[in-house]
Amino acid sequence: MEGNQLKGQIGVIGGAECTSDIYEIAREVGGEIAKKGFALVCGGLTGVMEAACRGAKEAGGITIGILPTSDKRAANPYVDVVIPTGLGHARNVLVVLAADAVVAVDGETGTLSEIAIALKVGKPIVGIRTWELEGRVPLAKGGKEAVALLVGMLR
Amino acid sequence: MEGNQLKGQIGVIGGAECTSDIYEIAREVGGEIAKKGFALVCGGLTGVMEAACRGAKEAGGITIGILPTSDKRAANPYVDVVIPTGLGHARNVLVVLAADAVVAVDGETGTLSEIAIALKVGKPIVGIRTWELEGRVPLAKGGKEAVALLVGMLR
Amino acid sequence: MEGNQLKGQIGVIGGAECTSDIYEIAREVGGEIAKKGFALVCGGLTGVMEAACRGAKEAGGITIGILPTSDKRAANPYVDVVIPTGLGHARNVLVVLAADAVVAVDGETGTLSEIAIALKVGKPIVGIRTWELEGRVPLAKGGKEAVALLVGMLR
Amino acid sequence: MEGNQLKGQIGVIGGAECTSDIYEIAREVGGEIAKKGFALVCGGLTGVMEAACRGAKEAGGITIGILPTSDKRAANPYVDVVIPTGLGHARNVLVVLAADAVVAVDGETGTLSEIAIALKVGKPIVGIRTWELEGRVPLAKGGKEAVALLVGMLR
Repeated sequence: MEGNQLKGQIGVIGGAECTSDIYEIAREVGGEIAKKGFALVCGGLTGVMEAACRGAKEAGGITIGILPTSDKRAANPYVDVVIPTGLGHARNVLVVLAADAVVAVDGETGTLSEIAIALKVGKPIVGIRTWELEGRVPLAKGGKEAVALLVGMLR
Repeated sequence: MEGNQLKGQIGVIGGAECTSDIYEIAREVGGEIAKKGFALVCGGLTGVMEAACRGAKEAGGITIGILPTSDKRAANPYVDVVIPTGLGHARNVLVVLAADAVVAVDGETGTLSEIAIALKVGKPIVGIRTWELEGRVPLAKGGKEAVALLVGMLR
Repeated sequence: MEGNQLKGQIGVIGGAECTSDIYEIAREVGGEIAKKGFALVCGGLTGVMEAACRGAKEAGGITIGILPTSDKRAANPYVDVVIPTGLGHARNVLVVLAADAVVAVDGETGTLSEIAIALKVGKPIVGIRTWELEGRVPLAKGGKEAVALLVGMLR
Repeated sequence: MEGNQLKGQIGVIGGAECTSDIYEIAREVGGEIAKKGFALVCGGLTGVMEAACRGAKEAGGITIGILPTSDKRAANPYVDVVIPTGLGHARNVLVVLAADAVVAVDGETGTLSEIAIALKVGKPIVGIRTWELEGRVPLAKGGKEAVALLVGMLR
């Protein structure tokens, strides 16, 4: 991988547990991120994170997993670059900071904390079936639409 | 101060900028926390954080400020114990973890990130004029009611 | 406790396990810190940390424990203000940043990491039976001498 | 880059300022890490960090920079994957945790804090013209020897 060939890093945030519907959506998001030439950054665990990494790898992309644990073995099998932080929930902030823009897929309160930090630091964000926060998070129907919207915001 | 005389630590989260109305509400919250025998923990800066610390000190309480900076001079003048973290936004998580229960007053996306973490880790929380999150955050009208509600949750 | 009555915060760093000799030295260090009017800040666990907190409480002082865990129950019984960080080893940096000056007692590599950060950020430091680092860490024989030296450096 | 083609992540720690001699040594270390099939992880800044990243890229490797700032622009031009943490000195711990093994080149107290954490968590480490710590850090003469030693420790 040549760093200068990468267009940047797009984050995918969502729960460690999800339905098969959400899994497929996250997988599509990961694939679109890779096809657009961006590295995918996420929390590196299961559920939405695993699905997005899997989709990115299937599309020949590169994946980065920023783990809450200090043990790299917590990473899902589709993570290329593993960053075990040992920071617990504070690692959520790092996932957002490592992303030029963020796609939020589904998710509960952990995902909400990442959406809030993304809004706080002004990272472009698009959501799919997640917290809308009174219109602060523009929603997309699927991965293709979400990533296209984000890439547009980054131009 | 004798640690064994303290009943615990209650957090107050809210913005570094606020209206005079919100300032007075946060000041009342801080005073109530002190009167109930709890230490007050917050982000240590201005606005709601300063107001809560001021109210706690006026009621003879003890205040803890967990700062985003590595420089203790960022603390407001009503902070007794200063914890300069140098962690930036990741310090929001520490404010929540240091609290047995949390009162959210007003606040924007930074406060939302702290509310989300409080819900994620299961800390009792009450809000005043803040994010309701579809009923996840029970709201109180003022400081007296909010702190009474929280103390009840801690029993 | 009135914050404005506290002269500042002095850190004590050392191992979670120590001999009875070292325990008594750390206890003396904690007592001296309290007698000089400073709050004691440490990692909040056992060994040197517990001994220093115990000594400070016996002298009527206030103690702050910055824990590596997110669970406050890991704190030793002599900690007044508990800051559970959930940051693991990264919490070592916070202990140093929260101290105006540092006393290092005994200790292994964890303590060495804190001494290194203290030197890096320019905090006054005195050691007792610990890493000398080619003279970078001035050594004292006991708690009374160590704290007297530090207080002198802070003037 | 295929993650499963990477053998792991080797860290290079050292100062943000260094002599041209040290720069060339760090550059050789980076090149050797890439030739052996490992990703290089470092603090992402100038000096030894830049030299190591440059050497790794010249050898067709992949580089990861874990920054103390929240702004990715602080990364040196040879960093592929940028992790802006905003954690200040606490990021030193993350550099060590992200590495399966560590090479320390030259360096002052910041580097010492990373060496101490590496020893604390039991990461294999080899040093070049750096802190020996009473034999705890085995020293190598150059990059080729250092990386060969480390790879041997990882088997």
